Amino acid sequence: MWQTLLALRRGVSTGRPPRGPARPLPPSPAPPEPPRDLAVPNGGWSAAMRRHYRRLLAMAAGGAWARLPSYRRARQHGAAVGGVTPPAQGTPPGDTRLFPRAIEGDGNGFEYAMFLNAAERRLLCLVQPGPYLEGHPGLTHGGAIATIIDSALGTCALAVAGPVVTANLSIDYLAPVPLGAVLLVEGRTERLEGRKVFLSCQVRDADGDTLHARATGLFIQPDPIKLRAQDGDGRQ
Amino acid sequence: MWQTLLALRRGVSTGRPPRGPARPLPPSPAPPEPPRDLAVPNGGWSAAMRRHYRRLLAMAAGGAWARLPSYRRARQHGAAVGGVTPPAQGTPPGDTRLFPRAIEGDGNGFEYAMFLNAAERRLLCLVQPGPYLEGHPGLTHGGAIATIIDSALGTCALAVAGPVVTANLSIDYLAPVPLGAVLLVEGRTERLEGRKVFLSCQVRDADGDTLHARATGLFIQPDPIKLRAQDGDGRQ
Repeated sequence: MWQTLLALRRGVSTGRPPRGPARPLPPSPAPPEPPRDLAVPNGGWSAAMRRHYRRLLAMAAGGAWARLPSYRRARQHGAAVGGVTPPAQGTPPGDTRLFPRAIEGDGNGFEYAMFLNAAERRLLCLVQPGPYLEGHPGLTHGGAIATIIDSALGTCALAVAGPVVTANLSIDYLAPVPLGAVLLVEGRTERLEGRKVFLSCQVRDADGDTLHARATGLFIQPDPIKLRAQDGDGRQ
Repeated sequence: MWQTLLALRRGVSTGRPPRGPARPLPPSPAPPEPPRDLAVPNGGWSAAMRRHYRRLLAMAAGGAWARLPSYRRARQHGAAVGGVTPPAQGTPPGDTRLFPRAIEGDGNGFEYAMFLNAAERRLLCLVQPGPYLEGHPGLTHGGAIATIIDSALGTCALAVAGPVVTANLSIDYLAPVPLGAVLLVEGRTERLEGRKVFLSCQVRDADGDTLHARATGLFIQPDPIKLRAQDGDGRQ
């Protein structure tokens, strides 16, 4: 439903005929539309972003890599990758958005598409940071770069180990990222120890010339005893 | 001008009378309105957020702490704190936004207000993360928490040492942050070494019961030789 509302607000066709005033109410509401995959080119993607996207799609055609769809809401994102965590106690019932998909307008915020190599436990994320991610004038905010890294490593860890939460991120910012640049973020699972997943990350410009940032991430699977206790409380 | 456009788009009064169709064009455009300070209560602030804000305002009345205004654009933010860096080469001329102020709608994104104690080189940032900052369902995204930490420590370092860039952030995520929580982030300058500023950070719920995250940050003043070279290129 929220998807339909958003489409209407943006003036996008919902594919349904308009309702006339004399038309009787339908017997039951129409089923909700499937969520829109946002990890595809739009009018905000630069020529360089499209070129690298086509290159990664061609790589994925080989079978070892898979493009991951991406949605506006956290629950849909988790389901697409293979793991959904139960909502926290007191979760507000209203509209929520996955943070990297919260900014409106093609090209304004985070434009990105992720590709997963499950066998090698690696993830590539093509990113174009838009003009609403500004830190210093003309440059991408350090928090936006941290958001890309957390998303890439979290998605990689989720694919490898199921639901996980971020326990540590350590990021070295090596070279500023101009707004509108095209970045290729590589996340790599280094090792698993019990419930812990250790990952590393490099953020390069997509042509590979500049290393903009490198990072390590530690993600942890939730304690299964605590999760069972939550189920016992009737939460899901 | 962008501020006026935003106000009109939101249906907010600009304080000017509406123009009639027969009215002649004014001889020159009206001067731009001053930017709107966003670090003040709005309809999206919870009762708890308002209560803690009043407490911090009362603390600031003592003189040692100062509330920092906050604006939509990076340049205005930097000027308010005391330092502006030159824009990067190739800065897009269009609309840009300071990343933590990019999400539309009162209460949807980052709601925050910063208070600085210049003598003690400490900063407090009261934050209410909204429903568009979601990571796991109902919980604040790790990248959003990193954004808050980078903004708080960066602003503290800027106040202490002038223009700086983030060189390292290391964040331990200790307890999940529900959407709509009220957080108090404390940034503290630990030491200065040459062009380096070392800081520490704690993210607590505003009542002080839970330590949600702790972090260290290293910020570096830009190389003055490189800055002079940029000035020589005619950029500012």
